[in-house]
Parts: sequence; structure tokens; C-alpha cells
Amino acid sequence: MDTATLRINSERLRADFEALSEFGALETGGVTRLALSNEDLEARAWFAGRLEDADLITRDDDAGNLGGVILAATPTKRTFLVGSHLDTPVNGGKYDGAIGVLAGLECLRTIRESGVRLPVNLEVINFTDEEGAWQSLLGSRALTGKLGETFMPVNDDQAAFKSALHRAGIFISDLPRARRDAADVVGYLELHIEQGARLYRSGQKIGLVTGIVGRTTCQVTFEGEAGHSGTTELAARKDALQGGAAFILDAHAYVRDTFSDGIFNCGNIRVAPGAFNTIPSEATLTWEVRHSSEQILDQMEHEVLALAKSCAERFGLKLRHRRLIHMPAARMSDWALETTEEVCQAMGVEGWTRLVSFAGHDAQMLSGFTQAGMIFIPSLNGISHNPQEFTEWDDVTLGANVLLQTLLRMASTF
Amino acid sequence: MDTATLRINSERLRADFEALSEFGALETGGVTRLALSNEDLEARAWFAGRLEDADLITRDDDAGNLGGVILAATPTKRTFLVGSHLDTPVNGGKYDGAIGVLAGLECLRTIRESGVRLPVNLEVINFTDEEGAWQSLLGSRALTGKLGETFMPVNDDQAAFKSALHRAGIFISDLPRARRDAADVVGYLELHIEQGARLYRSGQKIGLVTGIVGRTTCQVTFEGEAGHSGTTELAARKDALQGGAAFILDAHAYVRDTFSDGIFNCGNIRVAPGAFNTIPSEATLTWEVRHSSEQILDQMEHEVLALAKSCAERFGLKLRHRRLIHMPAARMSDWALETTEEVCQAMGVEGWTRLVSFAGHDAQMLSGFTQAGMIFIPSLNGISHNPQEFTEWDDVTLGANVLLQTLLRMASTF
Repeated sequence: MDTATLRINSERLRADFEALSEFGALETGGVTRLALSNEDLEARAWFAGRLEDADLITRDDDAGNLGGVILAATPTKRTFLVGSHLDTPVNGGKYDGAIGVLAGLECLRTIRESGVRLPVNLEVINFTDEEGAWQSLLGSRALTGKLGETFMPVNDDQAAFKSALHRAGIFISDLPRARRDAADVVGYLELHIEQGARLYRSGQKIGLVTGIVGRTTCQVTFEGEAGHSGTTELAARKDALQGGAAFILDAHAYVRDTFSDGIFNCGNIRVAPGAFNTIPSEATLTWEVRHSSEQILDQMEHEVLALAKSCAERFGLKLRHRRLIHMPAARMSDWALETTEEVCQAMGVEGWTRLVSFAGHDAQMLSGFTQAGMIFIPSLNGISHNPQEFTEWDDVTLGANVLLQTLLRMASTF
Repeated sequence: MDTATLRINSERLRADFEALSEFGALETGGVTRLALSNEDLEARAWFAGRLEDADLITRDDDAGNLGGVILAATPTKRTFLVGSHLDTPVNGGKYDGAIGVLAGLECLRTIRESGVRLPVNLEVINFTDEEGAWQSLLGSRALTGKLGETFMPVNDDQAAFKSALHRAGIFISDLPRARRDAADVVGYLELHIEQGARLYRSGQKIGLVTGIVGRTTCQVTFEGEAGHSGTTELAARKDALQGGAAFILDAHAYVRDTFSDGIFNCGNIRVAPGAFNTIPSEATLTWEVRHSSEQILDQMEHEVLALAKSCAERFGLKLRHRRLIHMPAARMSDWALETTEEVCQAMGVEGWTRLVSFAGHDAQMLSGFTQAGMIFIPSLNGISHNPQEFTEWDDVTLGANVLLQTLLRMASTF
């Protein structure tokens, strides 16, 4: 059979997308489906049902990654993965992650119905906690053996992390057992919305991801001294929040002016004790830097920390610092890139381009572990992690078909 | 009997102080006894027991104010009040408020034991929620009929406020019934730690408060747009936290440079959605301005708000604004001032001075309602609202004796 003419069922994919969007749906039109929350667990249960309906073999592991498998024509351990994640951030959108998992499922359904048999197993996979409600890329790090030493979640509350995992049937001590043998995983493909505006602005339909920026997330705490806001002399004030505010402005300006391809974000600040009539004694800020070069990323981290120290000194404060997460920059597989490009050509796609991803993805963890490729489709105005996240359904359909064809070409070569 | 030689029992006062300090005691050496919390309710129950032990007539009202009364020599409705508050802020000190209530109790015990009878009733009173866990000066505002129209607490959670009141046996709708007839209240005296360093630095022992600064507390919310921190173009970012950070720095600098006697404090900031990899869409800041002139206070509030608007514009944000609390500036009674000064002279106090209070106090609400006076004693290094709050016990004893003598002189003139 000539698989080059195979196409996914766009209506069926859309029905899945609409059903999934109900889990954690908000009045804003967005979705809050934090990893391991009730909404996420309900979405997983629904997804498990869809895997069964599609006659796939369900596979779950000790990190809560949930897959559906089509076995190879002849028995083998070698598996080609396709997927993404079902979790979202707070007040996020419907497309980020969801499209990659559902398009993967649709590809497998299409292949199964076509009767095509491949020389390797195919598995659509939903990775646990890509967004980092607890630990960014938890599932894909566990599968690739990149969990690291500690299992401390972003919010420092290991007891809460343990109990959230436990509700999903996951034991924290068993997480490393989700690791797979690299020899058994022959490839990984992920379809995803761009979350930037490069495709949308240029009118191009497909982005071929060459690499994913590295990211380092840190927490700094400015320590001052509480005092009555009315009576403490100005000269004696050690106001932690003023130090934090100066750092936010200085770090944004410095990174913007110094690293044209670098990103700084300060996403949260917590103040203690937090009363309107008390001088803040502590301000704890969570921030990150991103760059596609590991070396420059390292430089950014150190220089932003130096800025924090100088802001602390300026306001008579002490500084505590902790590195929470480091996700190294990743290069995508040349083979996957070239294959997707051939597919775009063969399908007559109107406009595609190579680009770097400024967002982290599960593919980042799979790179270096296996032949990992990533395909982007346009995001309206580049908006993401926001209820207004939107991609035209025709673009989703096209992306899913490019994914299907790339998967068929790559998986059939073994 | 010559009452001029009457002195309080310093040891008994100290025993009370140490017993009270246990309610809400922290390992830091400080106290958290938020109004209407379990710790506060336990402290009130203990205080009610101390009133009974002293053979005072217990009096409580519909705002939870708790008093102990010595009746006048001949029946009258006219009452002279003395007191302060037993509640503290989060991680506060042992002295703020507590000294005023316990010294008041000790004065009444001393007078009762001396056999002196006065022409008016004497009442030691503990006012509810001076610190503003729910609503600043709630009890003294209720007693003086200055509650205002709404009963919305600082944290906007009226249900929680209602239930906290209810646990203390207070119905929100009955709060106005705590109002007393101004004709029945002939005076009010309050002993308090300075919470500033003017007495401590100068070595003076007694501060005669001429007035209390007014305070306006506001909440501003900078509204931006959430977005993925890695992928949103720099030019398209509407980062609410950057607007908030600029406002904090600008407002501090402006008030410091423009109003030599004015105070600005930003005590808290909350960020939504708060994820490290999401651009903050909302930053809500609680801030206050203080000044002893109502007119300048008004000007400060308007100019700080204008700064917030200009910071919002600079970062492409919208601004919401709400005035939470306005406590007008207050003048203390000349009669009380002069009487305390005479007492200091007669007692041979080494050094006293007139001064303005930069902190709010229940006396602020009593001023204008009755003859209200306030007596300050030194605070170590001016530290307050902090576990390190400290006053030498000799200074407490001296303050309590000045309070006793002022009370005797004023109350005996009716």
C-alpha cells in the first residue's frame, strides 16, 4: 500500500480536542489542568478510554506516563514514540500539549485502520507534568533517565508532591523505574503550537524545530527586617520588597540590552509578613533565563544573580539563592528535520521554515536519548499560556498530516 | 487620702505581662495574636479572668470590646476609659497594645485597693482588632460610632470575617450597637510603646502625644496579559509585575523626596497566575500613606495614585484602584496633655517631650469623641511589629505610674 496518500480524520481529531477541552475548562475560555490535579487525572482517565476505543495496548509507567501501543509486524522491543502532554498551566489554553497527544493518537488510529504494519512498535504517549506544576518535564525526564538527584518540587513542599503523585498511583521512590533503555526507543516526534508569532506573522504553515533553548530557573530571597511602617525611621528601614522591585526592573533591562536572543522572566513574588502596615522582611522571587547556547545561558544566570546581590546591598538586605531547575539547550535530530522537510515538499505545504523553540518541550529531554523531532504549527498572534491561545483547525489538520507522514517515513526504515 | 503618692504594683503587672505573652508566643520570641484568632480569643478569656480576680465588673459590647469597671462613688453613667488592645500583627512583639491594657488594669486594681472613690466610673478596656487583621481599629471605631457604611474586611473575604466575628460571639449586623453616647464617656487614656526611636535615642522617658498621623490604605492592581515567558515577543509583553515593581520604587522615592514628614509603605504584592514560566497578568499591591496633616495626606494619596497610573502606562498595563481604609489625622486633648505634663513634673520624671505619633492607635478614634490622651514610653531602637520589640521594665513601670496619676487627676475633677 502506498502510505504517502494516508491522511488523518480531521473531524475525529476535532471531536477528541473538544472533549478534552472540557477537563479543567474555565469561564474565560481557557483551561486549568495542572499536572496530577483532579482535572488532570480525569483527563488521563478519559485518554485511557480513547486508547482502549482505538484498540491500542495501554502502557503506563512509574512516572505516570500513559501510552497506547500498536505492535510491530514482528515482535520487537524497539518503539517509535509520538506525543506530548495533557497538563496545562493555571489559566492556560486548549492547544499547548493537547494537540501533540491527540494528533499522535489520531496518527496511530489512522495507521491501524489502514492495515499498514511497521517494523517497530508505535506508541502515542502523554508525559506527566510537562508544565512544571511540580517539576518541569517530570515524565520525559524520568523516561530518559534525567531525573537528577532530588525530587523536590518547585514549591518546596515535598509532602504535597508525594501525596499528589500518590493520588495518581505513583510512588516518589519508584520514579526512576520509568527509565527506558535507549536502545529500545528508536525515535520521537512531537507536534506542537509554536507559542510564538513567527509562523503566524509570516503566513508559513509548518515550523521545523532545529533546537530548543535551555532554561535555568532560580529562586532568590531578599531578607530585610520587619518593622512598623509608620514609626521606623527611613534610614533604618530594610525593606525586602524594595530590593526585589529593583531587581525585577534591573534584570529585565540588563537581559534585554545585553542578550538579543536571551529571555528573562520573573513570574512570581511572595512577600512576608505581607501586612499593609509592616515593612516587608522577606521577598522571594522566582525567575528564569533562557538561551539556545548553554554557555551564554550560564553567563546570563551568573550575571542576573550578581544583579540580585547588588540590589540587596543597595537596600541593606541579605540574599539567599537557590537554583531550582536547569534544562540544557537541545538540538533536534537532523534525520527528523530532513524527513519532515521532504514530507512538506511531497505534500505541497505552502511555506515552512526552520526555527529555534524558545519554549521547553518534552522533545528537549528525548533529544540525545533518541532521534527526536518537533513540528510547529502557527499560534494566533503568538499567544500562549493564556485562554486566548488559538490555532486554525486547518493548520492543526495539516500539522497532524505532516506528523503522520514523517512518522510513517521514519518508522518504516527500521 | 493623698492620691499623689499612689503607685502601681510593678511585679504584679509584670506577672500579667508574662502570662499574656504566652498566648500566640512564637519561637522567635515574638507573638502572633491576630484579632479573633484562637490565640486572641484565649487571651481575651484569660483577661476576663483577670478582671474577675480584680473584682471589676465585666462589660462587653457588640463589637467584642471587653472592659472591667469600678463604679463611681455615687451612681452615674459617666465613665472614664483607659486601655488599648490585646491583638498583634503576624510575628509581632509582646509590648504593642498589651502594655496599655495591662497597665490600665493595674491602675484600676491599685485604685480599688487604695479605697479611693472617684466621681465617675473607671473602665479598663481591650479594643477589638486594633491592628487590622480584619479592619483596623474595629472596636474603637464601633464604640465611637465611626464604623462607616460597609463591613468589608481588608482581605475582601466578608464570609471569613463574619465567621471569625461569630466565633467571638459577635454578629456583623450588631456591630453598630457597640456605639456609646459621647455624653457618657468623659475621657480616655492610653499608655503605649513609642514604636519609634525618638525617646530611646534622646534618653527621655515619657512622650506626650500631641496628635496621631492620618493614614490612607489603598490597593492597586496592574493588569497586563499572561503569556508564555519563552515565546512572547518582548515588544508584545504586558508584564503586570514590571509595572508593580516600577511603582514601588517610584512611590518610595517620590514620598521620601517630597514629604519630609510623610510615610509611604508597600507591604504586600500578589501576582497572578504566579508560574515562573508565565508572564504575570496581574500584580495587586497594598500600600499606605501617612501624614499628620489631613490636607497633605490627601495630596499624597492622589499623587501616589497618579504615579501608579503613569507606571501602568509605561508598561502598557491597565490599573484598578480601591481605597481600603482612611483614618483621619487626630489631635489629642490639651487637657490630657497638660495634666500628664503636670504629673511628670510632680513625679520628677527625668525627661519628657511632646511628639506626634506616626502609628495609628485606638486613641485616634477616641479623639473628638472624648478627652483623649496618650502616653508613650521608649522602644529599644524604635523596633516594633517585630519579635525584637522591647522596653525596659523600669520604663513600663514609670509609664504605668504616669498613667495612674494622670487618670486620678483627670477623673477626680468631675
